[in-house]
Amino acid sequence: MRQAGRYMSEYRELRTRHSLLDICKTPELALIVTLQPLRQLDLDAAILFSDLLLPLEPMGIPFDFVRGEGPAIETPLRSEADIDRLRCFDPRAELGYVLEAIRLIRAELDGKLPLIGFAGAPFTLASYAIEGGHSNTFALTKSLMYSNPRAWHRLCDLFASIVAEYLKAQIDAGVQAVQVFDSWAGALNANDYREFVMPHTRKIFDALRGLGVPTIHFGTGTAGILREMREAGGDVIGADWRVPLDEAWQRIGYDRAIQGNLDPTVLLAPLDRMLSAADDVLKRAGGRPGHIFNLGHGILPSTPVEHVQTLAQHVHRHRLGAHA
Amino acid sequence: MRQAGRYMSEYRELRTRHSLLDICKTPELALIVTLQPLRQLDLDAAILFSDLLLPLEPMGIPFDFVRGEGPAIETPLRSEADIDRLRCFDPRAELGYVLEAIRLIRAELDGKLPLIGFAGAPFTLASYAIEGGHSNTFALTKSLMYSNPRAWHRLCDLFASIVAEYLKAQIDAGVQAVQVFDSWAGALNANDYREFVMPHTRKIFDALRGLGVPTIHFGTGTAGILREMREAGGDVIGADWRVPLDEAWQRIGYDRAIQGNLDPTVLLAPLDRMLSAADDVLKRAGGRPGHIFNLGHGILPSTPVEHVQTLAQHVHRHRLGAHA
Repeated sequence: MRQAGRYMSEYRELRTRHSLLDICKTPELALIVTLQPLRQLDLDAAILFSDLLLPLEPMGIPFDFVRGEGPAIETPLRSEADIDRLRCFDPRAELGYVLEAIRLIRAELDGKLPLIGFAGAPFTLASYAIEGGHSNTFALTKSLMYSNPRAWHRLCDLFASIVAEYLKAQIDAGVQAVQVFDSWAGALNANDYREFVMPHTRKIFDALRGLGVPTIHFGTGTAGILREMREAGGDVIGADWRVPLDEAWQRIGYDRAIQGNLDPTVLLAPLDRMLSAADDVLKRAGGRPGHIFNLGHGILPSTPVEHVQTLAQHVHRHRLGAHA
Repeated sequence: MRQAGRYMSEYRELRTRHSLLDICKTPELALIVTLQPLRQLDLDAAILFSDLLLPLEPMGIPFDFVRGEGPAIETPLRSEADIDRLRCFDPRAELGYVLEAIRLIRAELDGKLPLIGFAGAPFTLASYAIEGGHSNTFALTKSLMYSNPRAWHRLCDLFASIVAEYLKAQIDAGVQAVQVFDSWAGALNANDYREFVMPHTRKIFDALRGLGVPTIHFGTGTAGILREMREAGGDVIGADWRVPLDEAWQRIGYDRAIQGNLDPTVLLAPLDRMLSAADDVLKRAGGRPGHIFNLGHGILPSTPVEHVQTLAQHVHRHRLGAHA
């Protein structure tokens, strides 16, 4: 999950002059925004400030962000012909600005904190490219997937190839862990996930094996597909708050680490409620090594910064207590 | 789930002259639309054509439907004062048009098919009233719930009282089963569901006990709260496609019936894929009595009518085969 964002006044201030895409595409701005949360919050890692959709443009799927409405794809993919027209590209050449941002951030962090990179998974990228933006039903995405599996698999295979190369390039540039976001894969049942998604996501994790960099595999609403996500890959599986962390970990298996799973809306609650919800997550993790405390999805723009500060301190105190 | 809707040309034709609210508020139009699917589809029950939000207006929360965007509440509830201003009302008086539609439909069905009535559950109604429409995060809803539990519980208790009376009135008017829609309760984890939702939904099911009418309790994304939904009440628990039907039933318990759980998007697929997905649901139900075959959520506007026809026939043939 992004650490920086509209909940921080410094970020909002910068956004009055620069668009989200400007920040992503200008290494010096991406550096500034990546570091913003680290000055205010007691965090264990820095997360590259970037966007899942950046690979779409060089593939031939231009998009922009519409204020308050999220991404808007100019010409959504609707047919096999649309998919045929897409191009494979070399992320080292055409997403070089992300790699340059990584080098700047690593230099600035100077070994004090590790840096996490990320990319979108094929299903989630395909859903944006096909729906044209966010969707509640994924009707167009699933319709193409069911009706033309050949075109679907070609599209997702292309995404997988590009994302694998992109993440390898991020690792070469210096990120010390990578997260693969399949944010919307929970819209599928386990059968469909296995048939239409798993081969492609697995291709990404297979490509990253042996590079010495931990991999995180994240989705939301995934209570029904946690075992399948594990099978697709990831040293760490991310889970959202809709499934209790202990149940989720049991389904994933204790030989994998788990990341999660506080409901981000609880950061809008009074502090005592927020902290007791955090304690519930920590209790369910049972002090086992291999739990990465995190929110179950992105931080909300209306979140008070001091709540995030208090939460980070609280989790660290708990960890110290557990190890004392 | 609604049986009639934009996937049917007769419905679309009627909608060129009448708004959704007009249809709900005019018993003769509600009758016509309720009967539309029955002429084309081989169904086991009729479902009253109505809308979850109708009780909001007489409570003092006016709303309308914005074309293509769903409901829009004129002045969403944002404070305790907003909740204090709401009024309790008698559904027999102020939602009389729904009860009249029920009487007309029962007369027209003439005992050939049972009629199912429905209403929204407190959490789902509260989420519309607070967010002002559909939400992806339910940030405002949960924020009010966490920050002012007293106001939240007063709001949900008011919803529960009204909905209980409304469903009793529907039963008196002639519906032979009722469904309580907590469509968005899956946004909560089990702890929050238990604290903020269960007492209110239970109040509704408690009020309906002993009336001799089966009750259905429906939600989506509920893999993590099926046991809690069972505890809140309902002779039948509805589940969506994100959890396999056999796993869902096991969690709910075999002493309750289950409704579900075909992904509505699979009706957009080629017929062979749609039918094999339906077969998977039927296989997981294992021929047990107490499985009501249904979609896991509402039918999509782009669904071909002939796919719905084929699906209904297929399920009936399967049932006959199973009992032969």
